[in-house]
Amino acid sequence: SRTIKLAVIPGDGIGPEVVAEAVKVLGAVTARDDVTIETSTFQLGAARFLETGDVLTDADLASIQQHDAILLGAVGGVPGDPRLKDANIERGLLLGLRFALDHYVNLRPCTIYPGVTSPLAAPGVVDFVVVREGTEGPYVGNGGAIRRGTPQEVANEVSVNTAYGVERVVRYAFEVAQGRERKRLTLVHKTNVLVFAGSLWQRIVNEVALEYPQVAVDYLHVDAATIFFVTNPGRFDVLVTDNLFGDILTDLAAAISGGIGLAASGNINPTGRFPSMFEPVHGSAPDIAGQQLADPTAAILSVALLLDHLGLTDAAARVNDAVADDLARRSTSVRRSTAEVGDAIVTLLTDKVLK
Amino acid sequence: SRTIKLAVIPGDGIGPEVVAEAVKVLGAVTARDDVTIETSTFQLGAARFLETGDVLTDADLASIQQHDAILLGAVGGVPGDPRLKDANIERGLLLGLRFALDHYVNLRPCTIYPGVTSPLAAPGVVDFVVVREGTEGPYVGNGGAIRRGTPQEVANEVSVNTAYGVERVVRYAFEVAQGRERKRLTLVHKTNVLVFAGSLWQRIVNEVALEYPQVAVDYLHVDAATIFFVTNPGRFDVLVTDNLFGDILTDLAAAISGGIGLAASGNINPTGRFPSMFEPVHGSAPDIAGQQLADPTAAILSVALLLDHLGLTDAAARVNDAVADDLARRSTSVRRSTAEVGDAIVTLLTDKVLK
Ligand SMILES: CC(C)[C@H](C(=O)O)[C@@H](O)C(=O)O
Ligand SMILES: CC(C)[C@H](C(=O)O)[C@@H](O)C(=O)O
Repeated sequence: SRTIKLAVIPGDGIGPEVVAEAVKVLGAVTARDDVTIETSTFQLGAARFLETGDVLTDADLASIQQHDAILLGAVGGVPGDPRLKDANIERGLLLGLRFALDHYVNLRPCTIYPGVTSPLAAPGVVDFVVVREGTEGPYVGNGGAIRRGTPQEVANEVSVNTAYGVERVVRYAFEVAQGRERKRLTLVHKTNVLVFAGSLWQRIVNEVALEYPQVAVDYLHVDAATIFFVTNPGRFDVLVTDNLFGDILTDLAAAISGGIGLAASGNINPTGRFPSMFEPVHGSAPDIAGQQLADPTAAILSVALLLDHLGLTDAAARVNDAVADDLARRSTSVRRSTAEVGDAIVTLLTDKVLK
Repeated sequence: SRTIKLAVIPGDGIGPEVVAEAVKVLGAVTARDDVTIETSTFQLGAARFLETGDVLTDADLASIQQHDAILLGAVGGVPGDPRLKDANIERGLLLGLRFALDHYVNLRPCTIYPGVTSPLAAPGVVDFVVVREGTEGPYVGNGGAIRRGTPQEVANEVSVNTAYGVERVVRYAFEVAQGRERKRLTLVHKTNVLVFAGSLWQRIVNEVALEYPQVAVDYLHVDAATIFFVTNPGRFDVLVTDNLFGDILTDLAAAISGGIGLAASGNINPTGRFPSMFEPVHGSAPDIAGQQLADPTAAILSVALLLDHLGLTDAAARVNDAVADDLARRSTSVRRSTAEVGDAIVTLLTDKVLK
């Protein structure tokens, strides 16, 4: 029997509601596997900040690190709340965790499930994975400004890219591609403009490619990639890209595949040195919070990524299948509550067990 | 009678073919206006580089500056051509011109014309303009790398943003918004991550907004903006954004509105101190070059932007109308040559004159 220590960060807005369903599904799917999930809840986010002034303390971080994995709902207060102006919860907490726990792989699958309506007229079969770098690029926080607030202000942002950082994520992307049927990897960057970062990325991809002769590699500029996302998303298998391009492309990927309500993600430290963190791509949506209106599917699909990461691949597949079943049966006329969606997926999981 | 001195840069690949049609249309539309177009052709691009080793000489630049405006086809050689590896024609020539001629406004309209098929299932009415900054941001070329080619390489890119540079483009965007029916301006950035550049952009927009009380302003993170581009593009009226986000968003805009074959752009210096440059958003597409396969519509719509810029607004409107007419009549079964499309638009223009 195995015990998994899970740090749960419900967060703000709809976070607690979707996390409740995700935890419910996690319990249901592991019940038959002789796996015990031991959860500890961390109250972090805008609400905690407003109460205590803390975003992420050293004590929080030390305690979170005692866990095998992290499940996060969503963080962020009401947009424009003046009390949060200088806090930047997303940066301090979300990026804080990604950087502190060295989540250098940000894994974001994109599938159009049967039964799901895409905004594209003819999306075709879409099933790809974006491997987004998570600890470098323009996200490093190495910007600065002089003469702030004056007509002479200069504000710089620095994108930092290291061979070390690029290689480890590129290598991971090749492994993912190697394990898939089409074995195709697309590097997305902007090498014609960001020539220094671009040539580093291109060099590393070229070098690692030699070790993966079965993987077919191509390259797209980020602007051109967005065109293919809407005209021919089926061409993609695995994409590897930097932190900012990955951020942009994965929201677009979510949009074409049925919306941000279905987009799951894993912030992964493949070495196991730090716990990895799984979260829906969506935000805290304070406008619909507390009303059971949020779709917990993205959080539940994030649980599948979590199970996969922990080696419970069979359980992961069962969650994916149950979600696919549920999506295929969804009616556009009946709107279910957040808990009803979670319950339906649990029922589908349990039915499968009984079969 | 007015004489317009036009510098024409046909460029590479399909550039000369589409430019020929654009010049044809320009001649036809101005014929009745007592305007004479005096063109001088500049052989610049990959072909010229391969012949002479020059990308853009001081003499080229000095001579181009003697003109009232520039019409550019497309530049860039065959991707992967080893002889072009270190030249980076796009950077040296296209960005070279944009920076040398201080084209701080990169204007990119996005309209779904009647008769045009969008990859979106239900695009709705789409008619917006992206005002992309053209001389700052991550395009400044202030990157660098150390320990190149080694496992210890560090490659940085610096995005430079100045109050001066941001204010002038933001002010232009407000003017554009003020002149439109919906009077709505959306700032797109990534203020939650690129906090220094982001707060500069946000501050300037807030400040300039006070002078335009009729313009409704909102803000979107760039990732969220891509979602709306596919789920609700009709929500946009005028967008203002930095150089890199604008690059990405305008390719996406082209894709949703019928493809890069229809996307026009103006690289504008609104002060008139330097000639502005008009070009289709598409590239040189060497794979289909010389076969009369390219659609010249984007180049022709760029002529409309050029006429507008020169104050020939009536002629600009006639070109737009003729293109709209032609698009509405296009048949998907009959494929016309590049010249046939140009001729058809000229005929529509002339018919209008006779009416
Ligand atoms: C909230 C924000 C900091 C974050 C990011 O930019 O990475 C989000 O957009 C995401 O994609 O997870
Ligand atoms: C060719 C390239 C340098 C250019 C850019 O990035 O601006 C192009 O993509 C564009 O949008 O005009």
